[in-house]
Amino acid sequence: MSASPLAGINVAILGATGAVGRELIAVLAERAPDLGSLTCFASAGGGRRTLTVGGREIAVEPYSRDAIRPGTLVFMAVSGDFATVEAPALVEAGALVIDNSSAFRYDPAVPLVVPEVNAKAIGEARLIANPNCTTAILVPALAALHAACGLKRVIVSTYQAASGAGAAGMEELRVGVARDLAGESVPAEAFAHPLAFNIIPQIDAFQDNGYTREEMKVVWESRKILGLPDLPLSCTAVRVPTLRAHGEAVTVELERPCTPEEGRRLFAGTPGLVLVDEPESLRYPMPLTASGKDPVEIGRVRQSLVFGAQGLDFFLVGDQLRKGAALNAVQVAEALAAEGTLVLSR
Amino acid sequence: MSASPLAGINVAILGATGAVGRELIAVLAERAPDLGSLTCFASAGGGRRTLTVGGREIAVEPYSRDAIRPGTLVFMAVSGDFATVEAPALVEAGALVIDNSSAFRYDPAVPLVVPEVNAKAIGEARLIANPNCTTAILVPALAALHAACGLKRVIVSTYQAASGAGAAGMEELRVGVARDLAGESVPAEAFAHPLAFNIIPQIDAFQDNGYTREEMKVVWESRKILGLPDLPLSCTAVRVPTLRAHGEAVTVELERPCTPEEGRRLFAGTPGLVLVDEPESLRYPMPLTASGKDPVEIGRVRQSLVFGAQGLDFFLVGDQLRKGAALNAVQVAEALAAEGTLVLSR
Repeated sequence: MSASPLAGINVAILGATGAVGRELIAVLAERAPDLGSLTCFASAGGGRRTLTVGGREIAVEPYSRDAIRPGTLVFMAVSGDFATVEAPALVEAGALVIDNSSAFRYDPAVPLVVPEVNAKAIGEARLIANPNCTTAILVPALAALHAACGLKRVIVSTYQAASGAGAAGMEELRVGVARDLAGESVPAEAFAHPLAFNIIPQIDAFQDNGYTREEMKVVWESRKILGLPDLPLSCTAVRVPTLRAHGEAVTVELERPCTPEEGRRLFAGTPGLVLVDEPESLRYPMPLTASGKDPVEIGRVRQSLVFGAQGLDFFLVGDQLRKGAALNAVQVAEALAAEGTLVLSR
Repeated sequence: MSASPLAGINVAILGATGAVGRELIAVLAERAPDLGSLTCFASAGGGRRTLTVGGREIAVEPYSRDAIRPGTLVFMAVSGDFATVEAPALVEAGALVIDNSSAFRYDPAVPLVVPEVNAKAIGEARLIANPNCTTAILVPALAALHAACGLKRVIVSTYQAASGAGAAGMEELRVGVARDLAGESVPAEAFAHPLAFNIIPQIDAFQDNGYTREEMKVVWESRKILGLPDLPLSCTAVRVPTLRAHGEAVTVELERPCTPEEGRRLFAGTPGLVLVDEPESLRYPMPLTASGKDPVEIGRVRQSLVFGAQGLDFFLVGDQLRKGAALNAVQVAEALAAEGTLVLSR
């Protein structure tokens, strides 16, 4: 077996015990079994403990900045507040940091990267931001359409899984559904309202313009990753009672005509996407089939009834913890390592 | 207490044991406790039986056409195939029929009615079609916007409950969720795939243009009810694991500017809608709050980021079995009775 792009590299994960942290361990085990070392950290309060991921026991250490050596590749799956302090400090100390929080995503000096779309934005950066999950699974399709036909307008409605609120969100949904079936009251701590058998049209805090922060993340981040700062894009973000994998219904208006056949061909040839669009055999994107998988499922491609020959409607589902978080971060690391201009300790 | 609009009228329900049939019984009990008579029919194969609705025992008789007397107001909550044969025969025999199936919705000679929007379309008709549930909860908001600002384009993404597939759909979701939690296989008979913790971007059969029949129903029926045969409207219809009440994320482009404040004022003054739009106290439309209620909850009203001052984004949730079916049919009956030009037996 040939060496992985991350062969011999020393890696640290901060926030290893959360949903994204655990997924990072799993993705690295699959794609880079030949890492130099993998050190897992969680909040200092937790003490030393172990974590079981994919049947393996992983030691988790209490985090201290000094435990990170220069040249270490650091994945941060922690809160924005923690990242705001620690990420620059670790870069200063010689680490390369890929941050999964929103702390640096809108900083013009920090690249926000989905490697299939804008790997070249990495340049010489030693701190790279990983986008919001909903954005990460959306932009490969938008980039492909923009390159082929020019994007004019984008309208997105999301169907977001409980995993967007981490392991606690998934557990709250499981417990809530069981309690609802038993006729008991349903908890609402991870979410603003009970999610069992409900949908909640609010993810993250409301902004002055009436949009939620989650909706504006999709707008701001898609514009930055696509390099289209004025792209008209509107989003409605809705939490639905699924466990993993977010769905998105997308309508686009294009500068030039695009038939559904051309759209399908385009998506089928786009890295990171898998075309699942066989209505006659009832195959289309679903959380049931997309969960735990790397590529984003895309289908239901059809000519828009609103924008005519210059419009498409389609539907996509991507695993929120894979392409939506851990996988994208590891792909950023692979792109970093491939650049070769950066000093990573091996 | 004053007489209800349906006081003294003789009513029959065909398909009384289904989800819509039971809801019709409940809505009539609430709104017209002074009916002349209520006779409930189900398929002849079932024999004579009783049904418990709201704590009351209701006798259900095997259907025969001869059991319907002239002047009876008949609600049909049966299949399109059955309605195609029986509705014209009952009208011929002197009954007035309100049909909940899609059999006559696209017949230019049959009015398709949401009373708040187009009650006057009823005219002298003795057969009236009740719209698809997703359309019924959408058109009051669209009609209000069209009257005030002119509709130019409408884009809808739906979040549809299991009750859209009747009582069997709701039971399949409950059983499926319990089995999924127990690690057992999940059934898929009412739906094309397991719905527990899943979303399914297919409702009804696929059409040649790649849209499902459910999506095209929203297009065709909204155009007919609004009297806008060329309205550009596109829909993505998705089944989500909720029990009752459909959600819809709507983006509209208007002929004239409309601020979110104007939109809210407009919706608050529209019969059939209740404005639930207080983000600061986490109040917005949800199945949790809209289920079992008559008005459609509407909120999340904001200026579209795609259509600017001439665009709004909003979200609505309406009970699929109430305004989406039984309530609308009873409101049609009330409008019919109020007309007074029709012979109804009292």
